[in-house]
Parts: sequence; C-alpha cells; structure tokens
Amino acid sequence: MEISVQQTAARLLEKDDIAILAHRNPDGDTLGCAYALYYALTSLGKRTAIYCSDPAPEKYDYFTNCSMPELDPRFIVAVDIASEQLFGSGLKKFAGMVDLCIDHHPSNTHYAKELCLRANAAAAAEILYDLVCELGAAWTQPMVDALYTGVATDTGCFQFANTTARTHQIAADLIIRGAQHAMINQRMFQTKSRLRLVLEQAALENMEFYCDDRCAVIAIPKKLLLENGADESELDGIAGLPRQVEGVLVGVTITEREKGYKVSLRTQEPVDASAICATFGGGGHARAAGCFLTGTLEEVKAALIKTISEAL
Amino acid sequence: MEISVQQTAARLLEKDDIAILAHRNPDGDTLGCAYALYYALTSLGKRTAIYCSDPAPEKYDYFTNCSMPELDPRFIVAVDIASEQLFGSGLKKFAGMVDLCIDHHPSNTHYAKELCLRANAAAAAEILYDLVCELGAAWTQPMVDALYTGVATDTGCFQFANTTARTHQIAADLIIRGAQHAMINQRMFQTKSRLRLVLEQAALENMEFYCDDRCAVIAIPKKLLLENGADESELDGIAGLPRQVEGVLVGVTITEREKGYKVSLRTQEPVDASAICATFGGGGHARAAGCFLTGTLEEVKAALIKTISEAL
Repeated sequence: MEISVQQTAARLLEKDDIAILAHRNPDGDTLGCAYALYYALTSLGKRTAIYCSDPAPEKYDYFTNCSMPELDPRFIVAVDIASEQLFGSGLKKFAGMVDLCIDHHPSNTHYAKELCLRANAAAAAEILYDLVCELGAAWTQPMVDALYTGVATDTGCFQFANTTARTHQIAADLIIRGAQHAMINQRMFQTKSRLRLVLEQAALENMEFYCDDRCAVIAIPKKLLLENGADESELDGIAGLPRQVEGVLVGVTITEREKGYKVSLRTQEPVDASAICATFGGGGHARAAGCFLTGTLEEVKAALIKTISEAL
Repeated sequence: MEISVQQTAARLLEKDDIAILAHRNPDGDTLGCAYALYYALTSLGKRTAIYCSDPAPEKYDYFTNCSMPELDPRFIVAVDIASEQLFGSGLKKFAGMVDLCIDHHPSNTHYAKELCLRANAAAAAEILYDLVCELGAAWTQPMVDALYTGVATDTGCFQFANTTARTHQIAADLIIRGAQHAMINQRMFQTKSRLRLVLEQAALENMEFYCDDRCAVIAIPKKLLLENGADESELDGIAGLPRQVEGVLVGVTITEREKGYKVSLRTQEPVDASAICATFGGGGHARAAGCFLTGTLEEVKAALIKTISEAL
C-alpha cells in the first residue's frame, strides 16, 4: 500500500528497534538516506541500525563514521531500493519481511508492506529531507551532509535532466543548515582514481570516428580490465565519454568479455539507442542501451557501424 | 560610487539608448547577464544593444540568437567586467565612459561612474536576476535560459565553493520559470571539442607522479598547441586534471611557450599554491596559482619538484 511522507513519519514514530536497509554496491543516495534516517531516529531516542551487503566506500566517511548498536529488528525499512534483487547476498534474510520502503524509482516492485514512493524525486534523499522535517528531528552536520550527498550524486551535481526546482530548493536549505557542499562536491565529482585515469587514457587513445564523425567508438580490451582489476562501476563512467565529443550523436563502448563483447550505447536526441541495441537482441532506454555480440572485434564493430549508419 | 540593485533599476528606467558591454572572450556569465538585461530593457520599450570584442561562441545560440538595433549610445552599462583591461580591442572606445557597472568580482577597479557590486555572488547573473525582478520586466524563455547559463557556468554547475544557498534558490526559480536546464547543462558540461579531447589525451599520456604520488605533473609541448590551434580557454580546463587524481595534493601543468614554460599549479588543502609560485616570482590564489620559468623542461620540472616536496 502506498503511503504519504506524513504517514511514513507517523509509522516510524510508533516503532522501535528499526533496521534500515541500503542497496548492494551502495551509492551516495542509498547511504545518504540510510544515515540521515539513522541519525534522525537515534536523536528521537530510538534504537536503529543500518544493514548493507557491502561496506560503504571510504569517500563517504564524513557522514558514515559512527558506531551502530547491536539490534534485534522489530521494524524493517528499505531506502532507495527498487526491488529485493538489489538487497545483495548479505540482506537475503530480509526478503519478504520489509515493513516500509521509501523510494523514488518508478520501477519499484512494491515488495514492502507499505511504500512511500515519489517517482518524480531526482533522489530518494529528497523524500528523506521531507521525512526528517516531518519527524521533527534536530538537524545535525552528518545528517545534512548525508542528504546533500544523496541529492548531489543522484543528479550528477544538478546536471542531469531529473533535477527539478525542488531539488535546488532542498540543496539551498541543506546549505543554509550547514551542509559542506564544497568539500562533498570535490570528493564526489573532482576526484578520479588512478584506475579511472588508466581507463580514460585507453578510451581516448582508442577512440575512432565513423559516419561523418557522428559516431564515436571505443574498445576496452579484456587485458586492460584484468591488469587493473576494474569493476563495472568504473566502466559506467567510461561509457559516457564518446557521446561527450562535440557532434557525436552515437557513442559506442565495446568491452571485451570472456565469450564476446559487451556493447554500451549512449545517444543524443533523436537517435534511439534502445532500437539499435534491439537489432542485436539487447535493450535499454532511448539515450542509453546495451547488447552483447560475439565474433572478432572487427566483425562486432562492422555490424554495429552498419546498423548505426542506417539509424543516423 | 557603489549603488544598490534598487538604485540600479531606477537608473536604468530613467535612461534610453543603452549600450550593454560584455567582456572579451565572452563566457556564459557575461553573455547571460548582457542578454538578460537586453531582453528586459527591450521588453520595457527601450532601445538597447550589446557590444563585445569577440563574437559569442555558437554553443550559446539558444539565447543569443536575436538581432540588435543600430544604436547611438547615451548610457553605457558594463556587466561582469572587473576592469577596462577586459574590454578587448573592440570596446577600447568605451574606456573612461562607462556610466554603470554590474559585477561580482571583488577585484573590480571601480572604473565606472556607478558600481553595483555584490562580491559574494557566485555569478553576476545572480545580481541580474534580482535586477530583472526590480525592473518588473516580463520573464521570457531566452531571459531565464540566459540567467541559468550564467549561474551554472560560473559555478561549474553548482560544484565550486563559490556556490551558495542563494545560487540554488535562484536556479530553482529560473527552472520554475521554464529555464531549459537539462539542454543547457548538456551543452555546457557534457560536450567536449575534438581539440579538448586531443589535449586531454596528451595530458593523461604525459602525467608523471612525484613525492609519493602526492604531486602529479603534466607537460604540454608547444608543438601540440600550434598543431591544434589551442587557445587559453582550452588549457584552463586541462590545468585542473592532475589535481583530480586521488591522493594528489599538488597538480602541475607545464605549458611550453615561446621563451620558456608557463606553470599552472592547482592544490588541495592545506598546500598553498600561491606560496610555491611566489618562490618563482609568480602568484595567485591559495588553491590556484601560476608562474613562468625558463631553462629546459627537465630543469623546470626539477626546480618545481624540489620546492613542492619542501612544501608537502
């Protein structure tokens, strides 16, 4: 059943021994929400703790640095988790047991008994901001830093199309309440790992242009990934690079895998990335889609370029 | 004499045949201010035109695409111009003649008869936003797009430390009034020129690490700049790259010039870039400074590394 932020606050105020769940491979939004709720409930005198399959990355330590109590959970809240598949192995025991979910994904599977969903919120942290106001908890430094982090990271620092006037209004209020926005932005958006640097260099070196420079292609060899221990999240950032080049309507990133090539497409309007990938049995969204191809790298490229040039 | 935004509005309402000056190599803020003021004054029935030494880059055409009347200026307003040195050759004829300057640079030289200065504004467009409100002009699409562009570009899309709660409040209001923030952000922050790509690739290829990886150095050879016709503005972006690497406290960009090497330093707290550059007769700010060195590239690097390792 869907409930409002006011009802969500009322429900939480009734309960105690509250487990807060964050999704696997936690990002700034799920962590920002979980910790803001943890601090708010703790300041209201409740026992609560955060559960996550994976440890919080170190770069979030300015708001995650606190000790959680041992808990025998009697009420379970999931934040920014669209489906139970995102629990990760460590939280499998909570499947089918979530009492309340607070989320902004339109794709939420309604797995919780009650759901506070705001699909037009750029970040779940926007909902948490309203919830903290409703709960009447005192604002603290780590709380405003956590919420600012959620809002900033889910919008690419207010760059993405999901950003709304409300997003900016909340950011303004969090800054007034002391959020360390300059430090947070530096950590989140102006810091690159050495690995990311190596991948970017390889991507730029390999970039090839087709279709009158309206299509840019980069290929990441398996060797490079193995040598550097790169994970999916590092590659996500790389896939956006070819489309960034002026005049490019279709950016293609080809990553060598065990048994073929993973292809990530990013397009500018009006090119439909999803339709191109569907030709190869893949899918996705209009501006970002993917597929998997086998053959040699040259064969894979040739097949992609042929379909892309027809689409352009 | 310094005057308020209210006084600035009153002064403009008294005048007609108003020349609006933007600074040389115009950026999003000076153009955003100039065009917002142009549209506001025009809608109030005044004759007005924008003057700039250099043409507006094409990427701003969503708000600069309008025809200016021929004008015999009787009142001259400069926007976002800290000193007459920034007029450029095309506006030299206006030196000593500016009636009113609207600016946010603390370094403003008070060259205008009247100055509306707000040094804590992240962008001059923040002042123009208030001015448009005071003038009572109707909000239009190009006006809100122009002001959003000024605010977003001068803050690196709300990333830089100059961003305030007020910046976000103004962005929120401009989005409510229809600013095309997603399209603008894509053009301003997610589009790279082919030249920029070449420079980034060279920078990444050349990057060297010193002082236990706390110092990263890139060198841009003269040949690369000449071959690609790179200008100062492209290099500004490059100078920020070495400091972005995780763990790097001092980022050094060495650009080969006719008679030596231009050095740009970017630092993280607590390293004082200005103090390091002062050792070599240069200067600047705590986090960004520069100097000029002669000798071979290896000599220049050795001298810099020695001073930087002492500072670390």
